[in-house]
Formats: sequence, C-alpha cells, structure tokens
Amino acid sequence: MTDTGVIDRARLSDEQRLDWLRLIRSDNVGPRTFRALIDHCGNARTALKALPELARRGGASRPARVYSIEQAERELRAARALGATFIALGEPDYPPRLEMIDDAPPLIAVRGEISALAHAMIAIVGARNASGAGVKFAERLAHDLGKAGFGIVSGLARGIDAAAHRASLATGTIAVLAGGHDRVYPPEHGDLVEAILPNGAVLTEMPFGWEPRGRDFPRRNRLISGLAVGIVVIEAARRSGSLITARLALEQGREVFAVPGSPLDPRCEGSNGLLKQGAVLVTEAADVVAAVQPILGEPIAASAEEPPSSMPATMPDEDERSRIISLLGPTPVGLDDLVRLSGSSPAVVRTVLLELELAGRLERHGGTLVSLA
Amino acid sequence: MTDTGVIDRARLSDEQRLDWLRLIRSDNVGPRTFRALIDHCGNARTALKALPELARRGGASRPARVYSIEQAERELRAARALGATFIALGEPDYPPRLEMIDDAPPLIAVRGEISALAHAMIAIVGARNASGAGVKFAERLAHDLGKAGFGIVSGLARGIDAAAHRASLATGTIAVLAGGHDRVYPPEHGDLVEAILPNGAVLTEMPFGWEPRGRDFPRRNRLISGLAVGIVVIEAARRSGSLITARLALEQGREVFAVPGSPLDPRCEGSNGLLKQGAVLVTEAADVVAAVQPILGEPIAASAEEPPSSMPATMPDEDERSRIISLLGPTPVGLDDLVRLSGSSPAVVRTVLLELELAGRLERHGGTLVSLA
Repeated sequence: MTDTGVIDRARLSDEQRLDWLRLIRSDNVGPRTFRALIDHCGNARTALKALPELARRGGASRPARVYSIEQAERELRAARALGATFIALGEPDYPPRLEMIDDAPPLIAVRGEISALAHAMIAIVGARNASGAGVKFAERLAHDLGKAGFGIVSGLARGIDAAAHRASLATGTIAVLAGGHDRVYPPEHGDLVEAILPNGAVLTEMPFGWEPRGRDFPRRNRLISGLAVGIVVIEAARRSGSLITARLALEQGREVFAVPGSPLDPRCEGSNGLLKQGAVLVTEAADVVAAVQPILGEPIAASAEEPPSSMPATMPDEDERSRIISLLGPTPVGLDDLVRLSGSSPAVVRTVLLELELAGRLERHGGTLVSLA
Repeated sequence: MTDTGVIDRARLSDEQRLDWLRLIRSDNVGPRTFRALIDHCGNARTALKALPELARRGGASRPARVYSIEQAERELRAARALGATFIALGEPDYPPRLEMIDDAPPLIAVRGEISALAHAMIAIVGARNASGAGVKFAERLAHDLGKAGFGIVSGLARGIDAAAHRASLATGTIAVLAGGHDRVYPPEHGDLVEAILPNGAVLTEMPFGWEPRGRDFPRRNRLISGLAVGIVVIEAARRSGSLITARLALEQGREVFAVPGSPLDPRCEGSNGLLKQGAVLVTEAADVVAAVQPILGEPIAASAEEPPSSMPATMPDEDERSRIISLLGPTPVGLDDLVRLSGSSPAVVRTVLLELELAGRLERHGGTLVSLA
C-alpha cells in the first residue's frame, strides 16, 4: 500500500544537501527556524552567511556557531560508512505524511530500504515493562497489519516497541531513533536494527555521534506519530512516553487507537484513559484497518500553519525591534497579536523573531505562538 | 439515594392480590397478556372468569387451566413461611424503574428488606468462570458503588455476580432469581441469600417450587436490567448471558457500562465488544456515578408502549376474527397494520389477539409486533 504523495519533485544537489546539513546543525536552528531562515533568506547558503549577524542583532550572548564544511563532510562520510542516506524535506523519497507536520525535520538520515518509507504506516507503541499478554498482542497486531500492507513504525524500545518491530521484519518496519545512527539505544537492540534493514528502515534527524538524552525521546516521538496514519497504544502507564506520542498524534491529526486492559493493571491506566477520551478501541488488526481505510484515500493535507510570507524581508530598525521585544514575555503570544500591538508589518515581526530565535532567546509553542526563553 | 418514584399509590386488598396471583399463574398469561386482560376486562376477577371462553374462541386445543384458589393460597402460605411478600405493579413498594419496562411482572415475591428496592440501583453482571482480576474488580466496584449510595443488583450466579453481591452486603444488594424462592440456583448460594436478606432483598416473579430451566435465565435478566439505572458488564464472553442482559438494558433505555480487558482473554471478548459498540468504559466507580447522576434527577419515564385503549371492549364476530387471523403468520406484524388491513377497530383486533394469546397461539415481540406461535 503506497501512501498518497506528491509525484513530481526535485532532488537537492550535493552542494545544496551540504548547505542544508550545515544549517540544520547550526546553533539554535530547529526545524521551524530552518523554515523561517529559508523564507527570510531564500536558500540555505544565504542563510548560513546571514546567520551570525541575525543572531547578533537578536542579542546573542556569544557569536553563533555555524556547523563548518569540515564537520558536515565528516558527518556525510560517517553516514556513508553506515550506508545511511540523507533525504531532504521536499525530495521524492521523503515520507509524505511526515512532510506535512509543522516541525518536519529538514533532513532525515535513513538506513535500510528507502522504499519502505513510501508505505502507509501504523505506529505501535507501549510500555517497556510490558506484560507477556501485551507483548503477544503487539506481535499479533504488527504481524496482521504488516500482512494488510502497512509499514509498522515504532521507537526500538524494549517491550512493546521491540515486539512490534520483530513481528513485522518480513513485511517492513521503521524504527525512529532519538540519537545518531551510531548511538543505537538501547544498545542491545543493535541486532534488531540489522534485522530491520533488509525490508524496513531506521531513521533519525539527530547528528551522527549524538548520544540520546531524556528530552530527545519526546522530540523523537513526534516523528513516530508524524510518519503514521494512526498510532496504536498498547499498555501505557500514566504519564508514560506513549501518552506523549498519543498527544502529539492528536495534534498532528492522526488517528489514535488504544488496546483495552484490566483496570487493575497500572500498565493499562494510560491506554484505558485514552479510550475514555475517545481513542478507538482495538482488539484486532481489522479495527485499525476499518478506521484508517477512508483516510488513505484522501490527499495528504498539511497541518494548519501560517503560509510563508511572499513579502520581501524588511530590515527592522532599532525602535521597531525593541518595541516588538518589549511585547514578549514568558507567556506565549501569537504572531497576529504582535503585529497588531507593535504596528509593524508581519515581515518585520517575523524577522525580529528569527533573530531572537537564533540568539537562543525565543521559544516556539506550535502554531504561531512564541515566548521569551 | 432514593430513586424517583410516584408518591401516592394504592395497595391491593388481600382478595385482589389473590386474584392477581391466580391470573398471572394461569395458562398462557405472561406480563403483557396480564395487562391486556385487565384492559379488556377491567379487573383481575372478571378476567379470571372470562379467560376460559376467550381461550376457547382463540382456538385453544384444550380448556385453559386457571390457577385455582387452593393453589394460590398454598403459594401464599409457602411465601409467608419463607418471609416473602408479594408486591403488585402499581403498589408503593414496587421498584419504580422496574414498573416502567413494558413487560414488568404484575407480582414479584420479595424476601429481605423491602425498603432496599427504593434505592437507585446499578446492576453488575459477568462471567461465571471469572478471572481472579475480574472477581477482585467486581468486589471493588460493588463496594464503592454501594458506599456511593447505590443498591447493587445481580443474578446470584457464580463468579462476578456472587462477588458483586458479597461486596455490597452491608450497603444493600438485590438478587433476582430465575426460579422460585425455595429453588435457589446455584444451590450452594443458599448461604449468600441468607446474608443478603438483612440489608438487601432477593426477589423473583416465578412461582414457589419453580425449578429454573435454561430459558428462565434470559427472561430473568430483563428484571436485573429493569431494576437498575445502568448495568456494568465485567468479563463477558461472546454469546454469554451477560450480553443478553446488556441488550435488554439497551432496549429498556438503561445505561450500559463495560470493563475493558485484554484482547487475548476470551472472557473479555463480549465486554470489549460492548465498548466498541459504544458502552461507557469503566475503570472505577466514579465513571459510573458521573454517567448516571444526570439521569437520577429526571422523573422516571415509561418505555415506549401503546397507550391502553379507552374504548369499550367490542366482541368480534366470526368473520372479523377469521379475517384478522388470516393476516397473521410466522412473520411479526404490527397492530397498526392489522387494523388497517382488516378494517376492524383497534379494540376488536386487540381482543382477537388476546384470545389467540390465551389459546397459546400468539407470540409477542415487543412494541406491538405479533406473530402466530
């Protein structure tokens, strides 16, 4: 089952890919800032040149570090050594659904069978300390959904994740890492990664050599839900990572499914809670297939996001900049309000926000909400 | 918590009660026929006299047996010996919600604390071969709902039913039997019955000495759901009796709740299935309380039923009778259609149907649908 995608798309040149890699790896540049920089500067090469001055104007406490050509070339060599390919947002191989989330990574590094990313995918996530029944059900569901033509996405963790991957090795499974390809976590799943590669894929947005820390996992989880049409939660405790993934999935407009379990098992508290909140109850693969079938027919829609400005970037003067900054605080405020309250043009407000972001002084909260960091 | 009920109601005299008992125990008289007979004849005594002739005209193959005064007095003595009281539909102690189902029993025989029937009730039903977790959850739920002021209704079966009764002995629990008071099933639950009586009640519509057969249990189940505001299903397999009770509850407009369980446990297939069909998911007593609280405030409404005719009963002539009978067959047909197609008055059609019913030749299917037996 091939997921709906845009057909006619350009590939980056090697130089462009190097520029993209340098830009996304530079200080204070995340997926959203990357887009804002491209909007502001026109392309990655110009953005790399403009970046230090923009950050200085935003009040950076020290000069912004730009990822050097040497660093980028070293990362490209490391990728090649592991057989990983960088795919850029907008290229034909980029997973079509992932492209539509508003913080889609500009570059993903992919190992394995790249064509596996074109399949419609279902994410299966759940407890690391899963019960025997939970593991068995994850295997059954992943196997049956694989047979039904879906790629199975998960996070390579112990318990439910690993069970879902293992049961769909033959039909194609996709693991999303929270660190670099050379820093698989947990380390004992190196064999599982190798087993995934022939028919599936392992991908990450993180640099080679990146050791995953606690906060990288929730960040990674948005890719698990973003890749998929829907996400199935099996055995999730209260306040577990799987519930974070479910919340992200809802924000991305993905279907959320949950598997029922005994009210006496704390491992089912989160998943039963999702059912109370309206998640679709799953006891067999057919429940998932029936719910996502109608969605697969539709063209993939972008998530709600402000359309990029077509106005030429205007340089704010000092007065405008300080007026806009004075409107910001720790409470998130919308771009529209900033434009209205400052009296500046949207293009000027956007430029000031970009400067602050590159200086590490701005936080984005989804939509167009921002606050001072 | 006292359930909403009608305040000002008359009690039957001893003679009337004897007539009611004789009528409901006579051949081919069920709760619906009982009502039709009272509508047709005005009261039970007249109905007892009219019954043999009505059955003969309906084409009974042998003379209809009317429960004799001696039989009725013997049953009243047996009831007194066990401390059971007969309560008639319309009397102040009759459970207010039960009264509103369209096949409410004209008489129930009650042992124990009759005031327990005035409480708002929740039914808890489920598998006889329940798991340890299922039994434990049933106990917790019955205990907590009891503390919240609800009476707990169930069917005295092994497993979930018995656990629910036992956990609510102190707060009040109601057991509904499928046989006579002197034929408790399963026999080993005689002690449980005695333990229920001080704060709760045990009731049945069946005659003393009645040994329950398989088909008496689904019939009994309509009383379990009919007594309650809502019914909670814990561990029900496919095609189990608990699912029959859930279906009856829906038909009676009761809330249906189900407790989630592992998709790998066949004992949860039915309950998970109910959740897929829209039953409210329960992991704690608060889920039930939150859902029924708004209902308890409302006056109890009768279920949809044809209002009794106020026209004087008209005797059909032979032509009319045979024309109406010729319109009947094994496929259920509505009263309205029979009136329209026969050209007879509703009162005449109803009389012919009553005759057929008393002759054992008619089946009623709920609403006003009837077919030849």
